Amino acid sequence: MNTFGRIFKIQIFGESHGQSVGIIIDGCPQGISVKEEDFTFDLLRRKSGAKGTTPRKEDDIPQIISGIYNNFTTGAPITILFKNSNKRSYDYNFKHHPRPGHADFVAFKKFNSFNDDRGGGHFSGRLTLGLLAAGVIAKKIISNISITAKLTEAGGNKNIDEAIKQAVLNKNSIGGIIECTASNMPVGLGEPFFDSVESLISHAVFAIPGIKGIEFGSGFNAAKMSGSNHNDKIINAGGKTETNNAGGINGGISNGNNLFFIVAVKPTSSIAVSQETYNFKTDKTENLIVKGRHDVCFALRVPVIIEAVTACVLADLLLLSNLIENEI
Amino acid sequence: MNTFGRIFKIQIFGESHGQSVGIIIDGCPQGISVKEEDFTFDLLRRKSGAKGTTPRKEDDIPQIISGIYNNFTTGAPITILFKNSNKRSYDYNFKHHPRPGHADFVAFKKFNSFNDDRGGGHFSGRLTLGLLAAGVIAKKIISNISITAKLTEAGGNKNIDEAIKQAVLNKNSIGGIIECTASNMPVGLGEPFFDSVESLISHAVFAIPGIKGIEFGSGFNAAKMSGSNHNDKIINAGGKTETNNAGGINGGISNGNNLFFIVAVKPTSSIAVSQETYNFKTDKTENLIVKGRHDVCFALRVPVIIEAVTACVLADLLLLSNLIENEI
Amino acid sequence: MNTFGRIFKIQIFGESHGQSVGIIIDGCPQGISVKEEDFTFDLLRRKSGAKGTTPRKEDDIPQIISGIYNNFTTGAPITILFKNSNKRSYDYNFKHHPRPGHADFVAFKKFNSFNDDRGGGHFSGRLTLGLLAAGVIAKKIISNISITAKLTEAGGNKNIDEAIKQAVLNKNSIGGIIECTASNMPVGLGEPFFDSVESLISHAVFAIPGIKGIEFGSGFNAAKMSGSNHNDKIINAGGKTETNNAGGINGGISNGNNLFFIVAVKPTSSIAVSQETYNFKTDKTENLIVKGRHDVCFALRVPVIIEAVTACVLADLLLLSNLIENEI
Amino acid sequence: MNTFGRIFKIQIFGESHGQSVGIIIDGCPQGISVKEEDFTFDLLRRKSGAKGTTPRKEDDIPQIISGIYNNFTTGAPITILFKNSNKRSYDYNFKHHPRPGHADFVAFKKFNSFNDDRGGGHFSGRLTLGLLAAGVIAKKIISNISITAKLTEAGGNKNIDEAIKQAVLNKNSIGGIIECTASNMPVGLGEPFFDSVESLISHAVFAIPGIKGIEFGSGFNAAKMSGSNHNDKIINAGGKTETNNAGGINGGISNGNNLFFIVAVKPTSSIAVSQETYNFKTDKTENLIVKGRHDVCFALRVPVIIEAVTACVLADLLLLSNLIENEI
Repeated sequence: MNTFGRIFKIQIFGESHGQSVGIIIDGCPQGISVKEEDFTFDLLRRKSGAKGTTPRKEDDIPQIISGIYNNFTTGAPITILFKNSNKRSYDYNFKHHPRPGHADFVAFKKFNSFNDDRGGGHFSGRLTLGLLAAGVIAKKIISNISITAKLTEAGGNKNIDEAIKQAVLNKNSIGGIIECTASNMPVGLGEPFFDSVESLISHAVFAIPGIKGIEFGSGFNAAKMSGSNHNDKIINAGGKTETNNAGGINGGISNGNNLFFIVAVKPTSSIAVSQETYNFKTDKTENLIVKGRHDVCFALRVPVIIEAVTACVLADLLLLSNLIENEI
Repeated sequence: MNTFGRIFKIQIFGESHGQSVGIIIDGCPQGISVKEEDFTFDLLRRKSGAKGTTPRKEDDIPQIISGIYNNFTTGAPITILFKNSNKRSYDYNFKHHPRPGHADFVAFKKFNSFNDDRGGGHFSGRLTLGLLAAGVIAKKIISNISITAKLTEAGGNKNIDEAIKQAVLNKNSIGGIIECTASNMPVGLGEPFFDSVESLISHAVFAIPGIKGIEFGSGFNAAKMSGSNHNDKIINAGGKTETNNAGGINGGISNGNNLFFIVAVKPTSSIAVSQETYNFKTDKTENLIVKGRHDVCFALRVPVIIEAVTACVLADLLLLSNLIENEI
Repeated sequence: MNTFGRIFKIQIFGESHGQSVGIIIDGCPQGISVKEEDFTFDLLRRKSGAKGTTPRKEDDIPQIISGIYNNFTTGAPITILFKNSNKRSYDYNFKHHPRPGHADFVAFKKFNSFNDDRGGGHFSGRLTLGLLAAGVIAKKIISNISITAKLTEAGGNKNIDEAIKQAVLNKNSIGGIIECTASNMPVGLGEPFFDSVESLISHAVFAIPGIKGIEFGSGFNAAKMSGSNHNDKIINAGGKTETNNAGGINGGISNGNNLFFIVAVKPTSSIAVSQETYNFKTDKTENLIVKGRHDVCFALRVPVIIEAVTACVLADLLLLSNLIENEI
Repeated sequence: MNTFGRIFKIQIFGESHGQSVGIIIDGCPQGISVKEEDFTFDLLRRKSGAKGTTPRKEDDIPQIISGIYNNFTTGAPITILFKNSNKRSYDYNFKHHPRPGHADFVAFKKFNSFNDDRGGGHFSGRLTLGLLAAGVIAKKIISNISITAKLTEAGGNKNIDEAIKQAVLNKNSIGGIIECTASNMPVGLGEPFFDSVESLISHAVFAIPGIKGIEFGSGFNAAKMSGSNHNDKIINAGGKTETNNAGGINGGISNGNNLFFIVAVKPTSSIAVSQETYNFKTDKTENLIVKGRHDVCFALRVPVIIEAVTACVLADLLLLSNLIENEI
């Protein structure tokens, strides 16, 4: 349930206020150089403390438990932990008065109240640390491919700083739009149906909390276009196309043009203003103020995670495709 | 590569102009009534021949090969074939002069020219017959849940008949928008991360040829909203919410409200007007007229397939959740 | 439940007296030459009609449904059917009076009586035709490796013809011992724990009906040996060992020496002499004579199936290992 | 590669002389009581220090990292670590002069020398601690089923203490035979082919280092028997049989009688007497004395691990079967 990938398989675990969160990568080839400092850059991009992100500051130092020896991957499962040092659990307890927009209600129901509900427990965005760590290693496997995701819009506004400043003033939160491009793509990754590049990328992207939509290439605009406008004309023997409505994918398979997709991120559910929600003890709707430390616009932290899961998908597909190219 | 699901596992196979296309369902519980005529209604909805769909008319009679005995599922793998009776392969041959918007180029490259290229081969939309058949059975498993998908827009126009008429006149093709709702949903289907309802539904939906985007609940609008507007207020003990921006899903798990998502379908790639594309024999771009029989708006046929894959995902999750509810 | 393999994935289906039995192979690389006659030799080795095997004679002609085009694999799923032409279902009906040694009782219980019970239904040894077909293709993938399995003993007797003649006279059945050797093995197939060569081979071998035991290399004798006798001395740079108590495997991984294992096959459960078993209608034990056509020593047919599943495992591991060798 | 199970999925990781070894269990139902002391009994059974086992003494205290809250499973992935406190890596270094009977040679080749070779690295028997921990939890899931494995023979001798005393005197090692019985089995666990009980148990058992053979019920004796002797007569409506040659399994499915199987364990490869093996630096065979601390008869520690993997398989099948019983 918490695993993804066929060859480069990732498994996440942990709870927001438990001992640690972390990841296991099983199927990573041996001989890849991995040092602790390799994680720093992406960890900083995700880090708390920037304007618009929660004031909770974790050290977020990756602890390598297995699979790396003398700074190289060994071929055995790679386990990386991130300790949860800075917990303030008393801020939370929402089993009977679930926060709107959160998983409190469904977690309580699904797990018959046995779920760890401190800070969202296993549902916490903190779990994306493991995804990030896997992404750092995946990026090394797909070294020729370059992936860039960035926030292009917040709260419907291209002037992102302004939008955040305004949201802070309103004690409210805002969503955002992230664009992701993978360039220098090989031809032939992916499969016609269930393992189409779109299927795998969207599967991984929707594993990130708070994603509401994804579109590839022309995306929702395609529905308004005619075939003659939408078809991308191939212009050279490498398969380069004049336009990229396909988003770099035909029939589920990468066509060598840039992989391009856009995702929508919802506004943070936890906000400092009072909201009504059902109280399962009193059996009526009541006001609730969600305390704790929260992002005004958590979409700010998501681009690096989008890159990470994209890298994991592409690493998996690249490892799978090697097998095809080299066989027989 | 051509399989999907954990318990209710589906495997598709076949080529457009080969002997048959079909599906295997492994993991379907025994004791479900299945008759040949149960497939008729959904097959008719997908059928060729309606205005805007291709004139190729197949009989599309499901042949049950295994797993059903005395009109009940036996618990063994269910195999269903659809014969390809009406093939006109001479219309196609695009290995060296690939059709824009099609998988011709990537298929040739990925499979080193060994791919069956007659009518798109394994990449054909005809493969969705297998998905449809699996959906018919899946709908019986999730009998309390009702799934409805419909085309709400074609070529950017709510007046769908008009839009298609116009496209036929233009010898062009158009895309469309499909909305899907699953009502009477239980609380608790899905998992926090990789097996979130969104991850699984999008994985399955992007396996359908020609899908360009998907959004759940508020979707791309969420990116423009504030948290106070976006959060769905819970109003009763069953978890019913006043609004449904969540699309029926929190933290990856169904919350008992309607599952709601929208998908964008691209315009048919094969059009009757001349288009330029690269000719790999002459090494230059050249005009191409795609012969054969094609849909003007294949989005017309997609709603029943969207329902089918949604039913497969929900059947799988329901079977998985039974296990949780009944254990210990 | 009816699938096996990670890259070279096989899925079996069908019932003894249904329309067909068959196999799907998903993940087979493109470009492998496959003709109908390639199956003939192994089909003949398995075929009914030899002394000691059942008089039921099926034509057993493989029908290729998908995945092969112009006599080469295309990279798409390969589907092969074997029609069940020669059915005499009236011989069977054991839901209430289950045959000893058969799956009648468990099938009835597990599937709440919905199982197809004609001739053993999905439990029939006839399903091994699909395994055989997969093996024929797998052997082409591992072309440098040569696999040979043979019956070395029947009913405890090295003089196999004699043993069978005697069993026919007794209207009884006998079991047998099969030895399997794969030579010209590469170093490095398999994984340390759950995907050890022994784990995968035994998993596949016990999928064949009637197998009771398996041992690798020194096998059960190892339990009686001392370390100094058991350790295989490495004698050259290729890893060749003086003895082969390891059966060609160390730490779950092939070491380049011959893979060697032995399996035990039970006597055919269906015998022509009267046996007692419980009658669930009368609620007491009663005599039963199993009619129908049955092997006196079905172990005679098993070597070719042992080779087939071994080839499938090795093909899968070889495809997986290519990826490792060629990466980075 | 290091995972096993469909619902109750286990993933092992770690190296003998790395930071920790451990396990993740994904798919364990919520609400199962788990305390640290629940592991003590089985850990003591596996523990170093008994006569015939290695003098290396680890504290072996399970560290619960995730998935357990207030002493109950939460439904989220359960991670358990065992720190490696007592390492003496200088004893080992066998990349160029591999120990006979060990994985040194194959690990070096397979992982292009990047493998962690300290104390066997990821190939170490220390990894079975994770299996043991999973087994402790699995046993709680299958609480009605009772599993007992015991060493019945060492070095070919039923007088086990005597055999070990003798081996210690000889500075040699010996193998052993383990019998395992699961009683109070339900009818209906397992599947006809690839998920037969024998397939799954043998897959898991051969993941334990040093296992050479497995047989179910009559096992290798079956090959010498006639059908009339081998068939187990059903004697009551619960499916109880007079004999148990089937080992509690028909057609791959549990029949309600005791599950019974026997495994062979090889003698410890590391012995204190000098052995010849190839030296890849000098390119000739040379004498080697394996230092370090080693078991004389590591089979003594294996029964508890056999129980653990059996419990994992049965827990997985039980969870899967619930779904079937409760569906429709």
